[in-house]
Amino acid sequence: MTSTALFTDQYELTMLSAALRDGSAHRACTFEVFARRLPDGRRYGVVAGTGRFLDALRDFRFGEDELASLSFLEADTLDWLRNYRFGGDIDGYREGELFFPGSPILSVRGTFAECVILETLALSIYNHDSAIAAAATRMVSASDGRPLIEMGSRRAHEEAAVASSRVAYICGFAATSNLEAVRRHGIPGAGTSAHAFTLLHTGVDGPDEAAAFRSQIAALGVGTTLLVDTYDITAGVATAIEVAGPELGGVRIDSGDLGVLARQVRRQLDDLGATRTRIVVSGDLDEYAIASLRAEPVDTYGVGTSVVTGSGAPTAGMVYKLVEVDGIPVAKRSSHKESRGGRKRAVRLARSTGTVVEELVTKAGAPLPATDPYTVRELSVPMVRGGEIVHTATVEDARTLVAEGLRSLPWEGLGLSQGDPAVPTVFS
Amino acid sequence: MTSTALFTDQYELTMLSAALRDGSAHRACTFEVFARRLPDGRRYGVVAGTGRFLDALRDFRFGEDELASLSFLEADTLDWLRNYRFGGDIDGYREGELFFPGSPILSVRGTFAECVILETLALSIYNHDSAIAAAATRMVSASDGRPLIEMGSRRAHEEAAVASSRVAYICGFAATSNLEAVRRHGIPGAGTSAHAFTLLHTGVDGPDEAAAFRSQIAALGVGTTLLVDTYDITAGVATAIEVAGPELGGVRIDSGDLGVLARQVRRQLDDLGATRTRIVVSGDLDEYAIASLRAEPVDTYGVGTSVVTGSGAPTAGMVYKLVEVDGIPVAKRSSHKESRGGRKRAVRLARSTGTVVEELVTKAGAPLPATDPYTVRELSVPMVRGGEIVHTATVEDARTLVAEGLRSLPWEGLGLSQGDPAVPTVFS
Repeated sequence: MTSTALFTDQYELTMLSAALRDGSAHRACTFEVFARRLPDGRRYGVVAGTGRFLDALRDFRFGEDELASLSFLEADTLDWLRNYRFGGDIDGYREGELFFPGSPILSVRGTFAECVILETLALSIYNHDSAIAAAATRMVSASDGRPLIEMGSRRAHEEAAVASSRVAYICGFAATSNLEAVRRHGIPGAGTSAHAFTLLHTGVDGPDEAAAFRSQIAALGVGTTLLVDTYDITAGVATAIEVAGPELGGVRIDSGDLGVLARQVRRQLDDLGATRTRIVVSGDLDEYAIASLRAEPVDTYGVGTSVVTGSGAPTAGMVYKLVEVDGIPVAKRSSHKESRGGRKRAVRLARSTGTVVEELVTKAGAPLPATDPYTVRELSVPMVRGGEIVHTATVEDARTLVAEGLRSLPWEGLGLSQGDPAVPTVFS
Repeated sequence: MTSTALFTDQYELTMLSAALRDGSAHRACTFEVFARRLPDGRRYGVVAGTGRFLDALRDFRFGEDELASLSFLEADTLDWLRNYRFGGDIDGYREGELFFPGSPILSVRGTFAECVILETLALSIYNHDSAIAAAATRMVSASDGRPLIEMGSRRAHEEAAVASSRVAYICGFAATSNLEAVRRHGIPGAGTSAHAFTLLHTGVDGPDEAAAFRSQIAALGVGTTLLVDTYDITAGVATAIEVAGPELGGVRIDSGDLGVLARQVRRQLDDLGATRTRIVVSGDLDEYAIASLRAEPVDTYGVGTSVVTGSGAPTAGMVYKLVEVDGIPVAKRSSHKESRGGRKRAVRLARSTGTVVEELVTKAGAPLPATDPYTVRELSVPMVRGGEIVHTATVEDARTLVAEGLRSLPWEGLGLSQGDPAVPTVFS
């Protein structure tokens, strides 16, 4: 086990130290994770990171290696950390659930001491993964059912890339280029060749694209996808079919005006009898570019930079706030950053057709206001009880939930244009 | 050792497989890492990730665990990977060096097979770390010598956060909140308390800010920094000095109009005799907000989201391109994404005052054109020879280099306003 305990901000441990001295460390607390707002113009958020957070929580232990680097703490605090394991309760929205401003995505309950030190770990994972999820889901929605391949690893930190591949798959991407994500999370892998492979087949007489294509087909079979835009796309397509025959699996275009090129290449392929050869496009695609290609003969999208960077919103803006101490609601109140004190419960109201109309957030334990004629669904599920993880969900479960969530949104909530959240969050 | 070998895109291994079959895998190749352009309006880039890349290269080995997940490859390729270790040469810009569009930041030479499979690993690390570096350096430059504390871990993937802390320190930040960065990279740590600690000290009679401050001072001493904006800032400052006396180390303001509040709090502190109590501000600061506070009585900046997300440019846009095969220059030529073929050499020309005037990129081995009256500095250094890492530089070395780089820029290159690169890159 590699400990996750130092994915923590120093102030959590200095607060712990002070609270252990004055006894407040043992007060019963509730912390909640929520986002005050969605990124500019976004209509919904998508919870992601739950599975990774629960794994990281299991490994959040202070061994001697970790303690040795905490020389700013006195012995009593170090002893407390040495024996630490989270012993409280956690409830939360399931991974893949949609969320809206103020949705109480995670509720962490226990003593102040045991809860406060989880802040950075929880936020790092949820903020990163949920940012990727929001972007990926918009892309899936924009693709109108055509498969997307996540190929952005090279544009992200190497570990963030693995997490991004996992999230993109949860949100409906078909496959990833990232081999560590394939190994770690069981996601389908994809990828055939880069321009370097075509360029490698250059001799004293110049480029030999046909040799590169022959070599790739010999290794990967005629069902492979050939990259046709290293030199001249029309010549590249002609060479591809000459070498592979009309049974060629696919061609990839990675540059230029993808809409124009896709039409041109489709016509050329059809003329050559390669009517079933697929067209894969890639190159700086984001959700808007994907949507703009919907009318074109594109079969698969390869998406890189924009998905792993959250397409303009690289972090989800979630916070981890103390909302209740010994049953007393607490909240900061000096500025626009106010929070709502008190432990919360959230339900989602929907029409009988399944279309969501409202996110309703109430005080935990209080009766729900009248919700007729809508159906009511509880949004939080138990995840940890007395320190034991009781929630297990696979990436496939989360993937199903994202797809269900998209079907439940009012149609205008699926638009890419800027607007208010797809449904209002009502605090009662 | 944890292997880094699967931080790799699938297509690198399918290319390897095809190239091993047709013999081209053994051709002598040069790959180069460069950025075609800087993010919109940025005037310079900062190379970061070198140290992490060389560490990751050392651990790039395919053990049985890694090979077991590569079932799409045939036995010969798996055997080749089993015995793989990079045996070629690498030269590159040192970590902390400035760069400009087209700067040949890294040159990787060896057989096609041994070089092609490093693409994703190299780009993930350089693209992430250099994106953070560019943002962090602009913030340091904007802060005009006042210390900055990096506290953005919660807004980034947990491992990316550690890398970001390291990079921020290299670029001139004074400290980090991230305990894993403190342990792993020896960076100074910082952090005292959050609003949760003040809120924790709430009883049946309501909030008790004084109790929270007393507790923190008991644990951390009077030199600590108290967070004064949980309820009312003026009352918070009064309480802080009442509890701590005028020797209080600092107060932190985390919300509101920071410029107005800093002035008001400074006046209040001075009136209370706390003339040496420092003011720390935090809360959505980016390089522009930092610059706008230069005229205010702010002593320290705490920076979160914007630094760990690259302040609008979360990836550096570097690519890894095959530029030479058996001595023959090669380059893609079908689109605007053209590259310049052939192995390159880069020097930086400066006036006798040290101010840089030009980045000059020539063919490797060709004589330099006339460079009078400027001084000439070679930008690449040997990093790997025959697979052995020969370059060692500490984070302190890199930190020194960033500071030197900033001093070498023409003054208009240090502006935050959008513009062309601070110096032109000339290809001869």
